[in-house]
Amino acid sequence: MANVKNDLFLRAINGESVERPPVWLMRQAGRILPQYRAIRGSLSGFKELLARTDLAAEVTVQPVDELGVDAAIIFSDILVIPECMGLDYNMVEKRGPLFEKVISCGQDVKNLRYGKSAAEELEYVFDAIRRTKVLLEDRVPLIGFSGAPWTLLAYMVEGSGSKTFSKAKKFLYQEEALAHEALSVITETIIEYLKLKIENGVNAIQIFDSWAGILTPDLYDNFALPYIKRICEAIDSVPTIVFAKGAWFSFDKLGSLPCNALGVDWTIDPQWAKNKAPSKVLQGNLDPCFLYAPEDEIVAKTKDMIKTFGGSHIANLGHGVYPDTPLKAVKTFVNTVKSCKYGS
Amino acid sequence: MANVKNDLFLRAINGESVERPPVWLMRQAGRILPQYRAIRGSLSGFKELLARTDLAAEVTVQPVDELGVDAAIIFSDILVIPECMGLDYNMVEKRGPLFEKVISCGQDVKNLRYGKSAAEELEYVFDAIRRTKVLLEDRVPLIGFSGAPWTLLAYMVEGSGSKTFSKAKKFLYQEEALAHEALSVITETIIEYLKLKIENGVNAIQIFDSWAGILTPDLYDNFALPYIKRICEAIDSVPTIVFAKGAWFSFDKLGSLPCNALGVDWTIDPQWAKNKAPSKVLQGNLDPCFLYAPEDEIVAKTKDMIKTFGGSHIANLGHGVYPDTPLKAVKTFVNTVKSCKYGS
Repeated sequence: MANVKNDLFLRAINGESVERPPVWLMRQAGRILPQYRAIRGSLSGFKELLARTDLAAEVTVQPVDELGVDAAIIFSDILVIPECMGLDYNMVEKRGPLFEKVISCGQDVKNLRYGKSAAEELEYVFDAIRRTKVLLEDRVPLIGFSGAPWTLLAYMVEGSGSKTFSKAKKFLYQEEALAHEALSVITETIIEYLKLKIENGVNAIQIFDSWAGILTPDLYDNFALPYIKRICEAIDSVPTIVFAKGAWFSFDKLGSLPCNALGVDWTIDPQWAKNKAPSKVLQGNLDPCFLYAPEDEIVAKTKDMIKTFGGSHIANLGHGVYPDTPLKAVKTFVNTVKSCKYGS
Repeated sequence: MANVKNDLFLRAINGESVERPPVWLMRQAGRILPQYRAIRGSLSGFKELLARTDLAAEVTVQPVDELGVDAAIIFSDILVIPECMGLDYNMVEKRGPLFEKVISCGQDVKNLRYGKSAAEELEYVFDAIRRTKVLLEDRVPLIGFSGAPWTLLAYMVEGSGSKTFSKAKKFLYQEEALAHEALSVITETIIEYLKLKIENGVNAIQIFDSWAGILTPDLYDNFALPYIKRICEAIDSVPTIVFAKGAWFSFDKLGSLPCNALGVDWTIDPQWAKNKAPSKVLQGNLDPCFLYAPEDEIVAKTKDMIKTFGGSHIANLGHGVYPDTPLKAVKTFVNTVKSCKYGS
């Protein structure tokens, strides 16, 4: 196990019995922190912050300093993988990512760069990781992440965000063989990317399948689960978390993946999740909007959540924290988790 | 039961044993039909089509003529309720609805018009229903609909569409009493509106809770289910369908509502739905994107769906048909359902 001063997160994700759940928040390195907004405001755009590895490292560490969370997660984006594979994107303010080229035919898939040589293009991410490790001084573990193959393919076909991702789903229904071909090279690239992240110092990995919930159970079986499994099998040196948002319908199958932990969104009852995936550590699952509630309700609900999970649990929200969440509420959440003790 | 020539839909929704499932599609009166696009293209906007009751009636009947579906659904919009309550909206091309005023404080709720006098403002909808009945000549039943109270409140607070509706959810967490006050007057207005729709000739009612899936089970219990129940109790002269998209977590509770049928989205396995809501007719649930698949796969999947529901079923998609769906695929779906016979 990594040599960090606060190893609560690593002990919990490895299934050890711990004194309280560790706590961190998805999107903790972001707009909820005034320190982040100051840095972000001085730059021309989101992608400049990814490229400025000194600043990416700084914003990664900010929530450790400000909130006292038990883990840091490297500031980055899931779309760096499509980019290193040859599909560049722009992050358009208030609209989201917009790709210049998309995958629509066999030639588009053949044109993709992939594997180790593609992943190595992301040197700025690895540099940010190394710089983060220096700033962290081994206080807490550092989480690295990737989008899941289906979620990345969804963007690479759709070319932007979407409520339905109907163009990407059409691709699955009309071009099954091509979709598998694309998913294979995406998966291979993700694996090399995550191995390089680990070599450069991350202590755990989270896979975000952000668009899992728009697939049918059949599509999820066919186009998502096998590729996530391949990633989990390839990553054996650090613990892994799979967060397939909205994929309640496949939760038992997610529970059979060779990963350590599963993310749980706020629509899922903790007890239900425990029954479906008894061998997994579970991470989540407070509704991010609950942090708009009055302080005393946040305290009560957080305690209630910890009690209901009852162990084998990493405290987090059920989705990324929303940018306009009051900092005070985030601190209340973190501090409430840290004040809890199992069995008392 | 209404005196219509093809009463298959009504017999099925009333729980009678039928020869095959009736079939219709959510959003069947819309862009999938060239006839619709011709009419829509001649007008300045979506809301003009709502106001032009002769044309609204015409597009309502088009899918009966063109597709041979077993039911028509009145061409309208769920947001006519907020409008008659005093919150006007514009439908912005490619962006969706945009409200000028929203609910943000107690005075905003007090300012709302509601109940019968508000519902009566929607005379253009009732006129469209009467015109539709003339055009339909009792060939098939006509379905009327409303948004569910939570979904309407979500728009009335958020002021637009949203991926997270975090502003609306914040309102639930911060202004519980006010939210209940607003939901009560919205519910009262919906009931009066639906009664007027029934008086003017609709033969069944569908309640769309389009944003059910972004709530937690607790929020759904508190802010959604009691109001839908109130509507179902008030509508006793025609059969009712409740479609709470994404609310798998409350499906058993939806199964206890005093309605006839439940909508089933494509993430839900039909057998699972039957177990959770054994007393309900189920409506759905083909993935709308499946209509992009090759013809033979649409045929096979549709037959498979009918077999899995195995009766007490209204064939439909798991969500509204997407505008760019090939007309041929829609016809294949409808014709496949119509070619099926239970027990053969």
